[in-house]
Amino acid sequence: MDDEERPLSLVLFSGTDDKLSAAAVLAVGAAAMQRPVNVFLQYYALDAFRRDRIHADHALSPEATAAQAPAVHGQHAEHWSELLKQAKEVGEVGIHACALSMDMFKLTKADLDPLVDDIEGVAAFMADATGPMVFI
Amino acid sequence: MDDEERPLSLVLFSGTDDKLSAAAVLAVGAAAMQRPVNVFLQYYALDAFRRDRIHADHALSPEATAAQAPAVHGQHAEHWSELLKQAKEVGEVGIHACALSMDMFKLTKADLDPLVDDIEGVAAFMADATGPMVFI
Amino acid sequence: MDDEERPLSLVLFSGTDDKLSAAAVLAVGAAAMQRPVNVFLQYYALDAFRRDRIHADHALSPEATAAQAPAVHGQHAEHWSELLKQAKEVGEVGIHACALSMDMFKLTKADLDPLVDDIEGVAAFMADATGPMVFI
Repeated sequence: MDDEERPLSLVLFSGTDDKLSAAAVLAVGAAAMQRPVNVFLQYYALDAFRRDRIHADHALSPEATAAQAPAVHGQHAEHWSELLKQAKEVGEVGIHACALSMDMFKLTKADLDPLVDDIEGVAAFMADATGPMVFI
Repeated sequence: MDDEERPLSLVLFSGTDDKLSAAAVLAVGAAAMQRPVNVFLQYYALDAFRRDRIHADHALSPEATAAQAPAVHGQHAEHWSELLKQAKEVGEVGIHACALSMDMFKLTKADLDPLVDDIEGVAAFMADATGPMVFI
Repeated sequence: MDDEERPLSLVLFSGTDDKLSAAAVLAVGAAAMQRPVNVFLQYYALDAFRRDRIHADHALSPEATAAQAPAVHGQHAEHWSELLKQAKEVGEVGIHACALSMDMFKLTKADLDPLVDDIEGVAAFMADATGPMVFI
C-alpha cells in the first residue's frame, strides 16, 4: 500500500471544543488530500457527540488562559461538527464510537449524533490503523 | 517491512488514570492484532509507574466534569497496570522509561514497577519507531 | 519511500512548557536519527512562539501536582526553543505556523520568533505527513 493510501486514524479522547475543532481541521485537511480518515471516539470526546448536546458549549482545554479564550472562541465560525460533516462529503471519513466508552457512559447508538457511523471495538479499529495514528 | 509488522509507539506523558487506561486499551488492542508495541514513559506518566504508588489514585484529566467523573471512575474494573500486564502476555510489548524523565524525578530502576523493562534514551526509542507514534 | 526517510510530523497544540519540552526532545531525537521533522504550530502552541514572549513562563500542564512541579521546572536546563534550534542545526526540521491559528490570534509572521519558518495551511501540512504524526 502506498503512503498516500494509508488512512489517518484519529483517536479522540478530549471533549473540549478547541481540541475537537483541531481534530476536525485535521480530518478536513486529510480528506481534501484524498486520504481516508478513521475517527475513534472515546471518553470525553464520545460524551460530546451525544445527540442532545453536540452543539452545547464543551468548554476549552483547561490550559486556556483568560487572555487566549476570547480569541479561540471567536475563531470557531464553523462548528467542529459542521467541519466533520464537510469532511465526510469530501472524502472517505468513518466515525466510530468506542464500545468500551459506550458502556462507560451507558449510551446506545440512538443517543449519538447521526455523524457517528457505528460502534466499534478497539481491535477492529486497530486493524484498520495502518497509517499515522493521532491521539487528541 | 509490511504495515502490519511495524510497531505501535506510545509516548505516555500524562499520568492521569483515564489517559493511562486509554493508552493501555490501545496497547491491548494492538497486541491482540499481533502488532509489536513500544511504550515510552515520560513526565507525569513515568511518575505514575513508581512501584510504591502505581495503584494509587492518579486523578482524572482536568477537563473531566463532575457529571462525567463517576462514570469514568466506575468503568475501570481493571486497572491500567493489569491491562498492560495482559498486553505483555498476549504480544510483544516493551515498556521503557525515558532517561531524561528518570533524571527529572531522580528515580532509579528500583523505584519503578516491574512492568517497566528498562531505561532508554529518546534516540533509541526513535530508532525503533518505524510505525505510528501516539502521544498521550 | 523507506520507513526511515519518512518525516515525523509534530502537531503542537498545547503551549505549556512541559509539553513543548517533550515535543522538542522528540524533535531532537528524530533529527539525531537523520529523520526529517515537520512541526505544525496551532492554538496555544502558536501563541507560545510569539517573538516577545517565547522565553516567558508558559506554565505546566494543568495536571501537574504541587509535588511534581518543582522537579519538572528544575529539569529544564535548556529551554525548549534552544532544543529546537539544535534540532534544526543537526537535521532537517521545518517549523510551520498554522494559517487558521494565525488568523485566530491575529498574528503576522513578524510577530513570531525567527524559529518559525513559514505559515502553512493544513492541507499542505498533510501532504507532507507521510510518516508518523504526533499531536501534543
